[in-house]
Amino acid sequence: MRRWSFAKGHGTENDFVLIQDRESMLHIGAAEIRAICDRHVGIGADGLLRAVKAKHVEGWDGDGELWFMDYHNADGSVAEMCGNGLRVFARYLLDEGLASGPTVPIATRIGLLEATSFYDGRVRVSMGEVTVGNDPVTVTTADGRSYPATEVQVGNPHAVTFTDDVESVPLETAPRWSPVEAFPDGVNLEFVRQVADGHIAMRVYERGVGETRSCGTGTVAAAAAAALRDGHDFRRLTDGAPPVSYRVDVLGGSVQVELSSTGAFLTGPAVVFAHGEISLPEEL
Amino acid sequence: MRRWSFAKGHGTENDFVLIQDRESMLHIGAAEIRAICDRHVGIGADGLLRAVKAKHVEGWDGDGELWFMDYHNADGSVAEMCGNGLRVFARYLLDEGLASGPTVPIATRIGLLEATSFYDGRVRVSMGEVTVGNDPVTVTTADGRSYPATEVQVGNPHAVTFTDDVESVPLETAPRWSPVEAFPDGVNLEFVRQVADGHIAMRVYERGVGETRSCGTGTVAAAAAAALRDGHDFRRLTDGAPPVSYRVDVLGGSVQVELSSTGAFLTGPAVVFAHGEISLPEEL
Repeated sequence: MRRWSFAKGHGTENDFVLIQDRESMLHIGAAEIRAICDRHVGIGADGLLRAVKAKHVEGWDGDGELWFMDYHNADGSVAEMCGNGLRVFARYLLDEGLASGPTVPIATRIGLLEATSFYDGRVRVSMGEVTVGNDPVTVTTADGRSYPATEVQVGNPHAVTFTDDVESVPLETAPRWSPVEAFPDGVNLEFVRQVADGHIAMRVYERGVGETRSCGTGTVAAAAAAALRDGHDFRRLTDGAPPVSYRVDVLGGSVQVELSSTGAFLTGPAVVFAHGEISLPEEL
Repeated sequence: MRRWSFAKGHGTENDFVLIQDRESMLHIGAAEIRAICDRHVGIGADGLLRAVKAKHVEGWDGDGELWFMDYHNADGSVAEMCGNGLRVFARYLLDEGLASGPTVPIATRIGLLEATSFYDGRVRVSMGEVTVGNDPVTVTTADGRSYPATEVQVGNPHAVTFTDDVESVPLETAPRWSPVEAFPDGVNLEFVRQVADGHIAMRVYERGVGETRSCGTGTVAAAAAAALRDGHDFRRLTDGAPPVSYRVDVLGGSVQVELSSTGAFLTGPAVVFAHGEISLPEEL
């Protein structure tokens, strides 16, 4: 029997199990991740965030003493990046005394990112660069309706669709897209409604998962597409100009997205609400 | 902020958060239960098992020093009885040193029950009396198919249907029953297939919940209906006669049900796999 310390937290109801594995000694493989993230026979979470010193991560060539956010989805697959996870990861490092704030550098698969803790409990994280595609994409939902969509890259791929009727979009079944070659590894799909100037509401279908309560990179992708649609081309902002800012409502809460020519920032809630130990059998 | 110790366990993938509240000081209300059992912003479970000394439970007139299993569903509602919960509850009392085994008396809403721990990790629990109704009931599933069903009471109400095609029964939508007056407070529905002599497989639709991985009282109800169907009238067994025994496979595993004229017993796995502390805000 293996016995591991864990924490559980969430950001806008996107939930994570966190495990400190400083020197990469625990050997947390896909089977262990699936067992821990199983919602009935494990703690249950959308994904697992392993906190490991960056020097133990193959391919990392920056400061090896930084904490690396080793993020995996609940099914054990590797994920490039997760905005909600990054906020919760920063909250965890600060709560556990593993980093001093208010600003914490965090090593991730898409490079060095930064998180800043605010007094109201929210955390602001850098989300790296945002790239908007020019080629048209069409998204078709299970009820047969088709929508033009905007391709946005936020470390991972998104296709953003605008509709005034977000609530009725059927997301029990995976929407399709064309051309299929546009996203050979799949894509996250956002359905967005304008609420007011600088304020949108959205639902998200995450690839390989289904509809979720929240998706951090998805909120950034949606805000980026909305900004361009509203004529706010954040890509052309000069240095020192204030960023383009959008409030984005998801099912699990609200976040604020800031967009500039050099990258995006995401500000939202992040809580770690439980700590404990989990026992896992030697063989899974 | 309130900070409570908890454990998490499961029996055939029916999962529970367990909290020790010996002197009933914690004030765990419906809002707290919902927060703790929420699968994204809490620990997540099908229900909460509060361990409290029976003397603190209104209406209990037996030994006040017994541990009472105060079981609530994830939505905060009171549940009469849960066979899987009872096994996990016994495992918890034994693991925590709150009771000595192998046999543990447990106070419940349906009276004093008994749990016995086996060396293989399984737990055998008494399930009280089983009553089989004589009036015909019809169950209709979402695809329009109707089945004759047997009414069985195991502390809570069940309607058991036999079909060779259990796997294809649509349970995303609640089946209906008639006459509706048969179950004014709702009913748990079992769909059962005969696998071999003394061996059945089933799926269950729990009232107010939907299809679940397992339901302890449901396995007893299904075994009771199967026994009568197979000509084994356990209600007429004389004292000392061996009980009628059925293996019951559910989605979450396998259990063994024994039926006699004086009551039923359920034997199955029970594990407590995590311990920790959860923080809850003062106001929910």
